[in-house]
Amino acid sequence: MIRFECDYGEGAHPKVMELLEKTNWEQTPGYGCDPWCEKARQQILKACKAPDAEVQFVVGGTQANQMVIASILRPFEGAVSATSGHINVHETGAVEATGHKILALPEKDGKISAEQIEKCFIEYEESPTQEHVVKPGIVYISQPTEYGTTYSKKELEEIYGVCKEHKVPLFIDGARLSYALAAEDSDLQLPDMARLCDIFYIGGTKVGCLFGEAIVFTDRKYADGFRMIMKQHGGMLAKGRLLGVQFSALFTDGLYEEIGRYADSLAIEVKKALKNKGIPLYYESSTNQQFFILTDEQWAKLADKYAFSDNGPVEGGRLLRICTSWATKKEDVAGLVAEIENL
Amino acid sequence: MIRFECDYGEGAHPKVMELLEKTNWEQTPGYGCDPWCEKARQQILKACKAPDAEVQFVVGGTQANQMVIASILRPFEGAVSATSGHINVHETGAVEATGHKILALPEKDGKISAEQIEKCFIEYEESPTQEHVVKPGIVYISQPTEYGTTYSKKELEEIYGVCKEHKVPLFIDGARLSYALAAEDSDLQLPDMARLCDIFYIGGTKVGCLFGEAIVFTDRKYADGFRMIMKQHGGMLAKGRLLGVQFSALFTDGLYEEIGRYADSLAIEVKKALKNKGIPLYYESSTNQQFFILTDEQWAKLADKYAFSDNGPVEGGRLLRICTSWATKKEDVAGLVAEIENL
Amino acid sequence: MIRFECDYGEGAHPKVMELLEKTNWEQTPGYGCDPWCEKARQQILKACKAPDAEVQFVVGGTQANQMVIASILRPFEGAVSATSGHINVHETGAVEATGHKILALPEKDGKISAEQIEKCFIEYEESPTQEHVVKPGIVYISQPTEYGTTYSKKELEEIYGVCKEHKVPLFIDGARLSYALAAEDSDLQLPDMARLCDIFYIGGTKVGCLFGEAIVFTDRKYADGFRMIMKQHGGMLAKGRLLGVQFSALFTDGLYEEIGRYADSLAIEVKKALKNKGIPLYYESSTNQQFFILTDEQWAKLADKYAFSDNGPVEGGRLLRICTSWATKKEDVAGLVAEIENL
Amino acid sequence: MIRFECDYGEGAHPKVMELLEKTNWEQTPGYGCDPWCEKARQQILKACKAPDAEVQFVVGGTQANQMVIASILRPFEGAVSATSGHINVHETGAVEATGHKILALPEKDGKISAEQIEKCFIEYEESPTQEHVVKPGIVYISQPTEYGTTYSKKELEEIYGVCKEHKVPLFIDGARLSYALAAEDSDLQLPDMARLCDIFYIGGTKVGCLFGEAIVFTDRKYADGFRMIMKQHGGMLAKGRLLGVQFSALFTDGLYEEIGRYADSLAIEVKKALKNKGIPLYYESSTNQQFFILTDEQWAKLADKYAFSDNGPVEGGRLLRICTSWATKKEDVAGLVAEIENL
Repeated sequence: MIRFECDYGEGAHPKVMELLEKTNWEQTPGYGCDPWCEKARQQILKACKAPDAEVQFVVGGTQANQMVIASILRPFEGAVSATSGHINVHETGAVEATGHKILALPEKDGKISAEQIEKCFIEYEESPTQEHVVKPGIVYISQPTEYGTTYSKKELEEIYGVCKEHKVPLFIDGARLSYALAAEDSDLQLPDMARLCDIFYIGGTKVGCLFGEAIVFTDRKYADGFRMIMKQHGGMLAKGRLLGVQFSALFTDGLYEEIGRYADSLAIEVKKALKNKGIPLYYESSTNQQFFILTDEQWAKLADKYAFSDNGPVEGGRLLRICTSWATKKEDVAGLVAEIENL
Repeated sequence: MIRFECDYGEGAHPKVMELLEKTNWEQTPGYGCDPWCEKARQQILKACKAPDAEVQFVVGGTQANQMVIASILRPFEGAVSATSGHINVHETGAVEATGHKILALPEKDGKISAEQIEKCFIEYEESPTQEHVVKPGIVYISQPTEYGTTYSKKELEEIYGVCKEHKVPLFIDGARLSYALAAEDSDLQLPDMARLCDIFYIGGTKVGCLFGEAIVFTDRKYADGFRMIMKQHGGMLAKGRLLGVQFSALFTDGLYEEIGRYADSLAIEVKKALKNKGIPLYYESSTNQQFFILTDEQWAKLADKYAFSDNGPVEGGRLLRICTSWATKKEDVAGLVAEIENL
Repeated sequence: MIRFECDYGEGAHPKVMELLEKTNWEQTPGYGCDPWCEKARQQILKACKAPDAEVQFVVGGTQANQMVIASILRPFEGAVSATSGHINVHETGAVEATGHKILALPEKDGKISAEQIEKCFIEYEESPTQEHVVKPGIVYISQPTEYGTTYSKKELEEIYGVCKEHKVPLFIDGARLSYALAAEDSDLQLPDMARLCDIFYIGGTKVGCLFGEAIVFTDRKYADGFRMIMKQHGGMLAKGRLLGVQFSALFTDGLYEEIGRYADSLAIEVKKALKNKGIPLYYESSTNQQFFILTDEQWAKLADKYAFSDNGPVEGGRLLRICTSWATKKEDVAGLVAEIENL
Repeated sequence: MIRFECDYGEGAHPKVMELLEKTNWEQTPGYGCDPWCEKARQQILKACKAPDAEVQFVVGGTQANQMVIASILRPFEGAVSATSGHINVHETGAVEATGHKILALPEKDGKISAEQIEKCFIEYEESPTQEHVVKPGIVYISQPTEYGTTYSKKELEEIYGVCKEHKVPLFIDGARLSYALAAEDSDLQLPDMARLCDIFYIGGTKVGCLFGEAIVFTDRKYADGFRMIMKQHGGMLAKGRLLGVQFSALFTDGLYEEIGRYADSLAIEVKKALKNKGIPLYYESSTNQQFFILTDEQWAKLADKYAFSDNGPVEGGRLLRICTSWATKKEDVAGLVAEIENL
């Protein structure tokens, strides 16, 4: 069985493992107050061209989402999100567990628009029963989205413009950010991300690390008290230096960008094969996730050999997803492309 | 200014006030453990023909909703509700504040169907990523709905059937229940309510009391620990007997039903006048709330004299709501009807 | 049975009931946005000589405590309280239910000292593991305390001095405040309360109202967002004017102060009788609660006729409490005094 | 600087690292549903002689504590703990953040007794105001305690006996369990732990893993819904197999026990040196933590060369702690012993 169903099926990129191994006997203080975290912090700030930002490292994405939102919102505020947002449908109510409603807006290709967000703000501001409704207190989007699609620089500028006008912080889930930045049609790089939101995170779990997300508070005021929130949520790793070590490896010699390019290029090969074969793509993605519809017959031909993510029956067959990553082997992609051609 | 904008604009029905006055110097234990609460409890159980049910009194509807839901759900469970449900849009995130997501289903005339609810249950049960999504743990509906519409006996039987099949309790918000039971087209009475759900409440605030909701746990197991939840949420009234006294007055000589009939009949007079005039009704309501659209010109003629609830601009004019109650004066309704005829 | 066990055993002071009755048919907007709430607000601000303060009315004390604390604290902050504080032992974990730890300090006669509070602040500020401990974010005291004792002006000045120095707001639970202000040995009046804390409340439930507490935010910044918190916790009364009406009656012609003096004077009569008889007082209280120890034999003589609050066995007998209120009858006190003399 | 201040200053035991390295390219499903987790689960159940127990792996101890307690308690229940319990003083209010009070009992040498716990249960059960107080819903103890002391088999049997009698589950924090089991004076082994509580965890973070705690639900009913709680709290690791791999290494060829013995024996060497020198020990510990008092003069002699955990000034000097672990070097202990002898 060759697994394409997710981008967290293996361990860590060899260069990350190597540094973990190499530093294993070093003695450091705990909880992220060690030289490796400090080094990785500086590497990230440099890559983001954001010398005044603050960086905190946490183990996983659900933690990052839950803790950032819980830290920033007052009790009567909620988080604006696409209906398809990870926080709205794949975290077992983690945000609500901290007391906050998610104000879900209908998505289009996994995205929400500046116009929708502005309308949401204005409806609240003009509500005759404002004290009875939840105040939009943060906007949450993902880059790339759950469907592999991406926000363009223009879209992001518009969204952030609306957020700033209405004084609501913008928070970007970058669990797979590398794959968005590396996309052929991307016009955004790390410094753009840092410039166009208040908080975002650079995912490591799905981009070469064993685990880990680096949260960047481009406006430091939003980091106030965050480390206490981390500890309170069990999100402060005892051996915090493991996060520093891994992100330091990722931000050495362009490994982070390299992984994104590598995985995207393999996904695009599959996408091209699907297109050539006339197999319908469900979303127009240029990142490491590709969604497409196979007839039951087509799927039967592949299912024994390949693990895809199965999103159930849709019109025309089954909605399937493949993911690529740093660990995807070129020969496995070539093999899959050949199989697609023969469907 | 004659106020039709809500059904909680005055104090209490004179018979309720009279009993409060009459019992004012009585000495009783606090927190609802007094003879008046016990008496009212028995009156309610008799009216519901549910001798084995449990009754608890609380001050308000948001409290009732929040506490019942928080008491019954485990942390990873959520409440199924119409998008227009009071808990979803008018309680400043009270349910989420206790840690639970609201699983909102699209409403039709303020209602959700057995079919929708069943689909929601099945989607959860069949979800390949069940551990990552919120489990539907309670179903919340209102009778009548936010829009004055009502569930029929058949609809309620279907909904409760689905709930029982999937072992999810059904909870009915009856803040305005009297107005639903008294509706001309109603085929439901109190014993039906007790038979067709696990928990419901009989609203007093909007039906003749100064305040107060009587929560009926038709399945007593759902009342386990509820009084602790009440105290924890500040929902256990020190002078609890005030609730017992008021509900006892309400359930003496059919006052509760009488108030419903009185208010509904006045609302129907207005509805008829609107219909006769060709003014579009926004929802088909036979209860004490009527929603309709006036042109700006029409509204201008009435706005100086009458207070309606203004739901903002819609196609064709403004969406307005009138409410009637025990306190609505017949002459005021007659006056309004005459004005409508002259629009 | 003559009941001395609490100060919330009857309804409302006749003047309060009279005004409720008189205003019963008035039509007002809901949720505390009515002329009666506005009037009561002004009366309270005048009585407090605090024209710039903000006042909000809620139904009960547990609600007031829970909502003020939840509104002000960030998630990682806790409330400093005496171990005997109402929030620590009599509210079924209401504060913790909003996510906050209570940092309990040992009490002496129900009180905590400026010295203790300062030590608590300094321990936090100097903690080498500050990120791992709960930050003291608000100080909660009661005036009078659970044991009927009171803080003197000097004690309060010292406590507030420490709080201001360390930038932690001081919140005073005044559920029985009237009885503290009216005490013979009191050197504090309402304007002192307003001057010596950031938030306090004026209890109505135990001082002549059916229910109701008036929260005074002497520093308005702490009221920011509070009405949303009220709604979210089910603490915003639909017929809010009932609170305004009652507090307006209480602050007309000195009724609030009169009730305090009346109840205290009756309690002192009992206290004197106890002292004369040589019955040990458990706390030195000059307010409406008196705690004392009766031998089992003595208690047996009174238990058939009188209801006291029974705090269980202590060295020398049973610890009992009597409470007086606006509703206590002089003849009942005279009768009790006579019985004590004959013990 | 030679670091003795904690037992999580290095990476992982070489055998753990080796297996992580060896399995790095394996493809597995995520979230702990992989063959390595299954293998480790079976190894642990075998070591515990508890074939019917359930095991779940999480990243850290604060997470384990918070999630187990939040999963088991109803909203009005609290966790009984020693005042010195980790959940009470070192987790930034993590338990309270889930809505639950900690019912802290005074500790003796870091421990609480069956007698204290029983008294706490009985006080609740007999409370005349039971609805107003927090119900003890779980008992939390640590083995070893925060002070390195341990519960004997007899003490544990008594505590569990009381818990079973009062139907309250017993939960044991075993973050450093290996060091308790390996202690010279220990009469408890893993099967005893499994037999004498309802839930406990086997700490990996401080015993040779990069991170990870294996929670053993000896009574499976307490595991119901736990995986949803894990996901909701961000405690379900995407690459869950990392936990399985590490615990599998730990439970192969007795590594877990070996690490405990190794670290304890080094700590005892230091303890003996302290005793011989007449340096006062603050607690009588036979595990990997030793607490002792050095005069300022003595401390000055060591502080340049060694990092200890500094608990601040106490009578007679400073309270210091040393920790040993799998990573402590024998020659460093020998060096420290020599320095102590020369103090």
